[in-house]
Amino acid sequence: MSERTEVSSLGEFGLIDHLTKNVEIHNASSILGVGDDAAVIDHFGKQTVITNDLLIEGVHFDLMYTPLKHLGYKTVAVNISDICAMNATPTQIILGIGFSNRFSVEALDEFYEGVYTACDTYKVDLIGGDTSSSQKGFIISCTAIGEVAPDKFVTRKGAQKSELLCVTGDLGAAYLGLLLLEREKKIYLENPQIQPDLENEKYTVGRILKPEARVDLIDFFAQNNVTPTSMIDVSDGLSSEILHLCKQSNVGCVLYEEKIPIGEETRAAAFKFNLDPTACALSGGEDYELLFTLKQDDYDKIKDNTDISVIGYLTDEEAGANIITKGGNKYAITAQGWNAFK
Amino acid sequence: MSERTEVSSLGEFGLIDHLTKNVEIHNASSILGVGDDAAVIDHFGKQTVITNDLLIEGVHFDLMYTPLKHLGYKTVAVNISDICAMNATPTQIILGIGFSNRFSVEALDEFYEGVYTACDTYKVDLIGGDTSSSQKGFIISCTAIGEVAPDKFVTRKGAQKSELLCVTGDLGAAYLGLLLLEREKKIYLENPQIQPDLENEKYTVGRILKPEARVDLIDFFAQNNVTPTSMIDVSDGLSSEILHLCKQSNVGCVLYEEKIPIGEETRAAAFKFNLDPTACALSGGEDYELLFTLKQDDYDKIKDNTDISVIGYLTDEEAGANIITKGGNKYAITAQGWNAFK
Repeated sequence: MSERTEVSSLGEFGLIDHLTKNVEIHNASSILGVGDDAAVIDHFGKQTVITNDLLIEGVHFDLMYTPLKHLGYKTVAVNISDICAMNATPTQIILGIGFSNRFSVEALDEFYEGVYTACDTYKVDLIGGDTSSSQKGFIISCTAIGEVAPDKFVTRKGAQKSELLCVTGDLGAAYLGLLLLEREKKIYLENPQIQPDLENEKYTVGRILKPEARVDLIDFFAQNNVTPTSMIDVSDGLSSEILHLCKQSNVGCVLYEEKIPIGEETRAAAFKFNLDPTACALSGGEDYELLFTLKQDDYDKIKDNTDISVIGYLTDEEAGANIITKGGNKYAITAQGWNAFK
Repeated sequence: MSERTEVSSLGEFGLIDHLTKNVEIHNASSILGVGDDAAVIDHFGKQTVITNDLLIEGVHFDLMYTPLKHLGYKTVAVNISDICAMNATPTQIILGIGFSNRFSVEALDEFYEGVYTACDTYKVDLIGGDTSSSQKGFIISCTAIGEVAPDKFVTRKGAQKSELLCVTGDLGAAYLGLLLLEREKKIYLENPQIQPDLENEKYTVGRILKPEARVDLIDFFAQNNVTPTSMIDVSDGLSSEILHLCKQSNVGCVLYEEKIPIGEETRAAAFKFNLDPTACALSGGEDYELLFTLKQDDYDKIKDNTDISVIGYLTDEEAGANIITKGGNKYAITAQGWNAFK
């Protein structure tokens, strides 16, 4: 970066004006946006779906290998993913950031460039925010807002015995992308002369640095009159999410290892690390795909969508949550997902 | 504190269950609360007002003299104050916290005790949240949600020439409470044997540690059919807020020093520090009173409310924002409020 403008030269209100001067509004529901004590939305008879995530440098992201523009995009995408997991349409975000004095106005501009790109992609409006200094590092608070027809939201609680267990896209790639970035970071720290070698790893690295929320699937459900009976987004790994759905819906399940969708690049990357690709899909996390359950009668509506895989079915709660391996063995599914406190 | 339970012994989901197990719901609009990907609200035809604040240890609060219970209460109160500043009724909050391993489950319980007390006081529902570790200190992200009849919200933009400039309660006390706490901290750090001497300073110290949002005034406005033409809450000091209203409404103003409401305890505390009480009210901040403008025709509706002071009137923009001192001199109002980046 050639220029460095200190944030203190703008002041708090000047900075907010600077960062939001090009904000665009896509939704009629955004009644009042940035610049007052609070924002106002009107979903015109629909219900409002709302979620908040706190993202902290050194815990949720590493700026050594995360470009600020990608971080801005990902912040919006992962929050919108939670809105999608309710079968709702995302409409607005509110963004608060805290940062130490190592961040210049140009660095914040890069972050916001990613935020605005995501706002365009997902047709959501930035309607409010907060900026603050921090004692250490970069801190992001993102609130995402969406809308859904009254009582048409989908929770984690509605799954019933005999229904289908389905997942969108493919799994495990984000975790392998993270391992690759961590490996290159270690090599770089040991010898800064060596350039990173990530040329053939675009898919996995892209999945961790710039994930997408599956708004397209929510649109597909609406167009094809499909209503999942329960849904959750895959942020902590497939195992952990399956256990959430089973516990909250009071059901068990059978998951078939051979049905878990895993991409070719992901398999290749897993083998390089001597890892089982299935284990990466089960425990990896950060894929931001949608895990959902479906009545069997609805199977015909989804069977031609190559972005949806049926990976198992639901059973009585007493049978527990189990996986049938490719070899035909049956094991209880255990959560080895990410635990922020360990 | 006699016990110390490590957060890691509960895990992320166990901690969330623990902190939210006694959550109470006060509003029919809270359709779905804690425990899913997102929360759902239905304001039944009303508009939704929403705001978010990021509060960072060492920047916005000092845990050396801020009890965690008070911090929890204040977090909710200051966010609700922003909802009140839109002339809206607060209904829900979403709370995200990040904390280092120096915080035990018992410490978090204390914080949440304050949060729940505030939820009871203001009849708002905690409907979602996020917990995370942090590399350093305590980080709070609070989203407050409220409702207002369609297009009845009050912004900073509606003030017009000749209208009255009004403020609720009294000003300057929170800043003096902060000075007192900072002085006692310094004394304590120099000599830990000396006990803090804050016995006669309950009012000022209470104003900084446990501020209240003026929901009562929003109720008063509704009951007496009063609609302010513009409104803002006093978080950065009276000067700064007056300049916001004037700039966004394209008006000037005359403020009378003698009309600024300042309590006796506040004056006494100011004199101890050799400070001008008026300067404390103008630049102090954190009072969380409401500054608003009113049509002259509405004066009769508010004149008997001893909690509202008329402190000046609005003029043409060209005349600027001015204060008339007790001695009869006229000065331009300048913002010396808190700047988080200096």
